[in-house]
Amino acid sequence: MSFTVQATDGKARAATLTLAHGEVPTPIFMPVGTYGSVKAMTPRELEELGARIILGNTYHLWLRPGLEVIAAHGGLHRLAGWPRPMLTDSGGFQVFSLSQLSKLTEDGVVFRSPVDGSPRNLTPEISMEIQATLGSDIAMAFDHCPPGDAGREIVIEAMERTTRWAARCLPAPRAPGQQRFGIVQGGAHLDLRLRHLEELCPMPFDGFALGGFSVGEPIPIMYQLLDEVAHRLPADKPRYLMGVGTPRDLLTAIGAGIDMFDCVMPTRNARNGQLFTWKGKLVISNAKYKMDLSPPDPDCSCETCKTFSRAYLRHLHACGEILFARAATLHNLHFYLELTHKARNAILEGRYPAFASEAISRFS
Amino acid sequence: MSFTVQATDGKARAATLTLAHGEVPTPIFMPVGTYGSVKAMTPRELEELGARIILGNTYHLWLRPGLEVIAAHGGLHRLAGWPRPMLTDSGGFQVFSLSQLSKLTEDGVVFRSPVDGSPRNLTPEISMEIQATLGSDIAMAFDHCPPGDAGREIVIEAMERTTRWAARCLPAPRAPGQQRFGIVQGGAHLDLRLRHLEELCPMPFDGFALGGFSVGEPIPIMYQLLDEVAHRLPADKPRYLMGVGTPRDLLTAIGAGIDMFDCVMPTRNARNGQLFTWKGKLVISNAKYKMDLSPPDPDCSCETCKTFSRAYLRHLHACGEILFARAATLHNLHFYLELTHKARNAILEGRYPAFASEAISRFS
Repeated sequence: MSFTVQATDGKARAATLTLAHGEVPTPIFMPVGTYGSVKAMTPRELEELGARIILGNTYHLWLRPGLEVIAAHGGLHRLAGWPRPMLTDSGGFQVFSLSQLSKLTEDGVVFRSPVDGSPRNLTPEISMEIQATLGSDIAMAFDHCPPGDAGREIVIEAMERTTRWAARCLPAPRAPGQQRFGIVQGGAHLDLRLRHLEELCPMPFDGFALGGFSVGEPIPIMYQLLDEVAHRLPADKPRYLMGVGTPRDLLTAIGAGIDMFDCVMPTRNARNGQLFTWKGKLVISNAKYKMDLSPPDPDCSCETCKTFSRAYLRHLHACGEILFARAATLHNLHFYLELTHKARNAILEGRYPAFASEAISRFS
Repeated sequence: MSFTVQATDGKARAATLTLAHGEVPTPIFMPVGTYGSVKAMTPRELEELGARIILGNTYHLWLRPGLEVIAAHGGLHRLAGWPRPMLTDSGGFQVFSLSQLSKLTEDGVVFRSPVDGSPRNLTPEISMEIQATLGSDIAMAFDHCPPGDAGREIVIEAMERTTRWAARCLPAPRAPGQQRFGIVQGGAHLDLRLRHLEELCPMPFDGFALGGFSVGEPIPIMYQLLDEVAHRLPADKPRYLMGVGTPRDLLTAIGAGIDMFDCVMPTRNARNGQLFTWKGKLVISNAKYKMDLSPPDPDCSCETCKTFSRAYLRHLHACGEILFARAATLHNLHFYLELTHKARNAILEGRYPAFASEAISRFS
């Protein structure tokens, strides 16, 4: 396991992260595979798209299919048929956002499974145990992510709890070669972000994430905070911005020093009929595409753009055809992966600021 | 355009049908691409699966996306991104089974579009015109298929109307190289089937289909009728059994002299969780597969069976994941295409009866 920075350009970095299941060039986007599968995609397609690492959701996989089934397969890689690196989140974000019956104590969170109503107890130790069973290349520390509209006192409380929970995660057993990342909270408060960063970064994690972004705060505030905070995370370890975001968000965060991203946006928006292109978003249901014979993005080389017209995709979307979800997801993931790939090349060639500002101007 | 019989084995035949977009070895199964796409599949996948010809539904494509969009693409091949042969049905079956407001006259059928409520008029001439615009390799004559429980008098009326409509289809303009197949009706009455066959087969169609099977009649009756009727269709033209059926149905019909099949069963059942295997049907939601690490069909070489366990597929199905629909559809189509491929080889090698009875005994 290693992390090597090949080049920097301002605060932006191009690096290589070596994990148990392979190398990951950064900056990198990680498609989200909630229940094992990246929605609508096969593992083979993801490999062909150039995906190098995907994310699995601990909370969802714990509830379905459950640890027994995952353990019988020897972990998530074999279960999902994905041979490359995988990162698992801790379940913290989901247990707070998806479980309305959750009860929070210093020990952890008690909630009822939305699947079968069974009582569940998620603690730092249990999250690490689940992630060890999942066998991910990177396990995330169990954190407390408060809502975006939480007051300063609640943010402080969640932050301090996250630090104590992080300390409990570290001694827990791990899968062979499994790395662990700590999560910096602190909401939309710069002083709290910096304070938490100073508390957490001395701890022996293999990398650090920024959690609690893109949870409702104004975009300019997020950009300002990223600009102040991201480059202060340890320079010799990977930096991961959780759950973010738009193409513009990614390029801005890369410019601030972030290496890794995950987000449901390319996959979820695809299923809803929104395609990302190098000239901005394309809403396929728009009447103007009814007779449009051109591909979704004339600048794109993905299978969808090589095969289908906008008019046909609009028709498939109107008919609720599964092929639409597939074709749109494939295109959007291709776009996101190409975006981080191009960002990496721009950093290696020392032209990142020009690349990013030109691309952002086209998206807007 | 040609049809060459390479070998016969009893009534079964192995042949090659040369169409405007390529060669089709028979016996062959045609996956159904209702709205252009074979549900959940890409054209590339279908080619990789070895699909040689697919079916498009005239009724559905006429209503959505409509002729204007299809014509702008130069036809269905370009619209759907499918380069190989395509057969289109006439819309007759759908207009009778899906349009409750239909009014039948000698001219044709008047109904309201279920999509937008607009009044529509489908006649033999209009069906041929739509199919010419679709540009299919094979267009089907516009027929009247009565319900499975129709009385003898209604069957006779529909049969006689089908003959008159067939005569109106023949002079209509066609797409370059487009072949036309007539449809033999006659319900579950052997005398009517033979009478209609004698009426229709002298007409200058390029091939003949049996319509109105698998519409509710007992299976043994269908098998008996096929055994009496199929081999009496012209020996020098392709014979197509419409909308049928189970693996056992296909093997039985091939034994009776049928060359071509279409059916939604492999694709629809896949989405509902039913997988076809060489040992019979597998219902993936069954609790016994919860921890089953084996592939759906250990005798199958498809990507699904090479990649996923029964336990993982069961999990994906329970979670409503699109990947389940994809993986199951791919497997079922692989099975159906392999079934007709193996049947062809058995005929070429003069061992069809043994092959078919052995396979049927395993399915049951």
